[in-house]
Amino acid sequence: MIRVTVWNEYIHEKEMPEVVAAHPNGLHGTIAAALGEDAEFVVRTATLDDPECGLTEEVLRDTDVLFWWGHVGHDRVPDEVVERVYTHVMCGMGLVVVHSGHHSKIFRRLMGTPCNLGWHDDSRERVFVVNPAHPIAKGLPAHFEIPLEECYSEPFSIPEPQELVFLAWYNTGEVFRSGCCYRRGLGKIFYFQPGHETGNSFFVPEVRMIYRNAARWAFPDRRDEKLDCPWVAPLEQV
Amino acid sequence: MIRVTVWNEYIHEKEMPEVVAAHPNGLHGTIAAALGEDAEFVVRTATLDDPECGLTEEVLRDTDVLFWWGHVGHDRVPDEVVERVYTHVMCGMGLVVVHSGHHSKIFRRLMGTPCNLGWHDDSRERVFVVNPAHPIAKGLPAHFEIPLEECYSEPFSIPEPQELVFLAWYNTGEVFRSGCCYRRGLGKIFYFQPGHETGNSFFVPEVRMIYRNAARWAFPDRRDEKLDCPWVAPLEQV
Amino acid sequence: MIRVTVWNEYIHEKEMPEVVAAHPNGLHGTIAAALGEDAEFVVRTATLDDPECGLTEEVLRDTDVLFWWGHVGHDRVPDEVVERVYTHVMCGMGLVVVHSGHHSKIFRRLMGTPCNLGWHDDSRERVFVVNPAHPIAKGLPAHFEIPLEECYSEPFSIPEPQELVFLAWYNTGEVFRSGCCYRRGLGKIFYFQPGHETGNSFFVPEVRMIYRNAARWAFPDRRDEKLDCPWVAPLEQV
Amino acid sequence: MIRVTVWNEYIHEKEMPEVVAAHPNGLHGTIAAALGEDAEFVVRTATLDDPECGLTEEVLRDTDVLFWWGHVGHDRVPDEVVERVYTHVMCGMGLVVVHSGHHSKIFRRLMGTPCNLGWHDDSRERVFVVNPAHPIAKGLPAHFEIPLEECYSEPFSIPEPQELVFLAWYNTGEVFRSGCCYRRGLGKIFYFQPGHETGNSFFVPEVRMIYRNAARWAFPDRRDEKLDCPWVAPLEQV
Repeated sequence: MIRVTVWNEYIHEKEMPEVVAAHPNGLHGTIAAALGEDAEFVVRTATLDDPECGLTEEVLRDTDVLFWWGHVGHDRVPDEVVERVYTHVMCGMGLVVVHSGHHSKIFRRLMGTPCNLGWHDDSRERVFVVNPAHPIAKGLPAHFEIPLEECYSEPFSIPEPQELVFLAWYNTGEVFRSGCCYRRGLGKIFYFQPGHETGNSFFVPEVRMIYRNAARWAFPDRRDEKLDCPWVAPLEQV
Repeated sequence: MIRVTVWNEYIHEKEMPEVVAAHPNGLHGTIAAALGEDAEFVVRTATLDDPECGLTEEVLRDTDVLFWWGHVGHDRVPDEVVERVYTHVMCGMGLVVVHSGHHSKIFRRLMGTPCNLGWHDDSRERVFVVNPAHPIAKGLPAHFEIPLEECYSEPFSIPEPQELVFLAWYNTGEVFRSGCCYRRGLGKIFYFQPGHETGNSFFVPEVRMIYRNAARWAFPDRRDEKLDCPWVAPLEQV
Repeated sequence: MIRVTVWNEYIHEKEMPEVVAAHPNGLHGTIAAALGEDAEFVVRTATLDDPECGLTEEVLRDTDVLFWWGHVGHDRVPDEVVERVYTHVMCGMGLVVVHSGHHSKIFRRLMGTPCNLGWHDDSRERVFVVNPAHPIAKGLPAHFEIPLEECYSEPFSIPEPQELVFLAWYNTGEVFRSGCCYRRGLGKIFYFQPGHETGNSFFVPEVRMIYRNAARWAFPDRRDEKLDCPWVAPLEQV
Repeated sequence: MIRVTVWNEYIHEKEMPEVVAAHPNGLHGTIAAALGEDAEFVVRTATLDDPECGLTEEVLRDTDVLFWWGHVGHDRVPDEVVERVYTHVMCGMGLVVVHSGHHSKIFRRLMGTPCNLGWHDDSRERVFVVNPAHPIAKGLPAHFEIPLEECYSEPFSIPEPQELVFLAWYNTGEVFRSGCCYRRGLGKIFYFQPGHETGNSFFVPEVRMIYRNAARWAFPDRRDEKLDCPWVAPLEQV
């Protein structure tokens, strides 16, 4: 059993008719449904509308892997919530950052860089697997297509990924490191590019499979329940 | 010509007689002298006592590589100064973090982890070169000794180094990744363990040579003078 | 179920009385017993004495993870056997290289470097966990001791490890990257320093636990049964 | 002064009229001319036609950086020449592998993998800089185009690059890690995709600039003149 919390700012879905129509339960509901295709996952959701963004100490303690979708509301996530998530990542909680989450406070905090990139709307994206044996690529073909996705373009101002799993090709002439793995403290972090609020990425079977694979991969190998591991505790005389 | 600014909190030297005696011009003066052994370096210093910590926009623009020594005064460095240094690292300025600087705001900010470690006083340290061809190891023997240094012990809660140059052995039974290289944005970052306020590391010739090698290595390959490179500028539509 | 084949040159055990006494079933028997402490593993062994070193195509196809112990007999392993093992690693078979296996043909072949190191007999080794969340470190304390092991010393002429899990401290004054992870093709490779033919490493519980953890970690995420994956097949026009 | 030897199999230029026309002095002559645009380089060439492939011990000792272009003649390079080059890379000589050199004996030997890939003729390639501060990207724009190049496609069966500098986008729908850095022993290795025998890559100014940048980057930080460094010498008791 893997306990996933899907966090979503939940703004576009209330304002843009096409997003409402495509995601009647919000983008968090759509991601939760993709995970729910496998009974292994127990999924809950949380949004900006919830007290403390729905990410209380209690919720995070019960979360093995946190998914993060944000875009225009990054600044509305209080710093104390970001620090709480950061501490749980250090203590082993997995984190899957989707699409425009590249600019979230928590991702920038963990990377130590601004995580900027170039972008434009309306591309056809082809995702290539460059590390076929990686658990997140399990079951995937050599490459697959997303008919309509927002284009993200290099340079992507991240630290060199520890493992690069996917590369994106766009018919409009760009390329992007679209699947990047990091370890920070006891936690594993995966960034994945597809997942625009419009377009149809969320309904491409391979994308949904990748969300499930990523959740399995990011499941903690070791979790510090007491929040006092070396990635949290102050200096210690030995 | 390489323009180095050596930053030091400059606290111990005013309070501990033994440190005053060993470093009459402060630890910054001692590090500056080690760099000054080669005419290639133009060195200035800055401390907590200076307005804006001596790290104004103007000073940073004129700095190719910044050395950082801090210990008990980390919290006294204003966040806005940390952000200014961070921006210049993103734009190419090199950063050499010495010893207890592991816990400085700027190093933690760039690593995305707390950078904790274990420690105790009074060890004999032997530094091993594990990457002999690295520019920072230039001219060094396979290993060398520091008769008296503070012991730092694993686990060191940093991201996996992009290049590991040195490992430390301590006669008291510990081991440490004592020379670690990272790239963040356009800037290069080197962490080096030796450099305690007491002890004699600063006067070991190999340590002084490493400071000079590190300054040469961290010199920017590319510097963004306008502070608008992809590591700084906001999202851009392409 | 994880199918492990433990390969051992099986020379010292027939010639050195102390090794015979400590390892009545050979070093392969001792390693097999360490794995066998968990019912998850189905273990077989193979040695230089077997036809084709016991590593026929059929055996390798039925092997999820191969352990390798060799020392004075490296050159007696035929190149064609080495190539067969290499092909299976490319196709996903895991490989755990123990101690003096650092100089085996297969490890050097996969690393692309000579894998030299310094050494001397009779040290007390303390193994530090530098990546506590790595699956191979599961269940381990921050560090543990091996009362009597051969000392291996840096520089170890390997490519920079993709993940460094353990560092060794020796009471005789050396340090060593003692637990190193690599991916080559679809296969995962782990090098682990402890495991000298004399001494008592094999009977230290943490060492035995690491062998089991390593076998679990190296289990293929993807296995190419047809031996025609991109890591084996010739150039292909797309 | 950087002493470069450009090695080329020199087969197509004698058989294919279009290649003869474009490269009257052979591909080695064309690469040598690109390097020769900067007086810093002293360039010589060597081919399959020369005794010992022109890569005698004496030539390699006088070579700081070796360029390698091969395609249909890989198997005609004797193993002993490959081992000689390998030893010099271990001892610090730089190596720049161009285009179809991905399948050369020496590159495969150093990578420890088959270095396979997909391919087809006649693409328009756009090269993106993903690591703008890397010395090999010096002076380059964010991306540039090659009107006609052979397409190489992922998966490219190499070890994860230590530094990824360039990514290629092809108008025919593929993507490729086209600029990859490695360190092996004391030597630095750069693989660069553009450089097909037909097409016009060699005459694109940015490609020529990259050849020069790569030669500067691969210049040895440390060279072992005696060929007895830890990457060559046998086991040593310490």
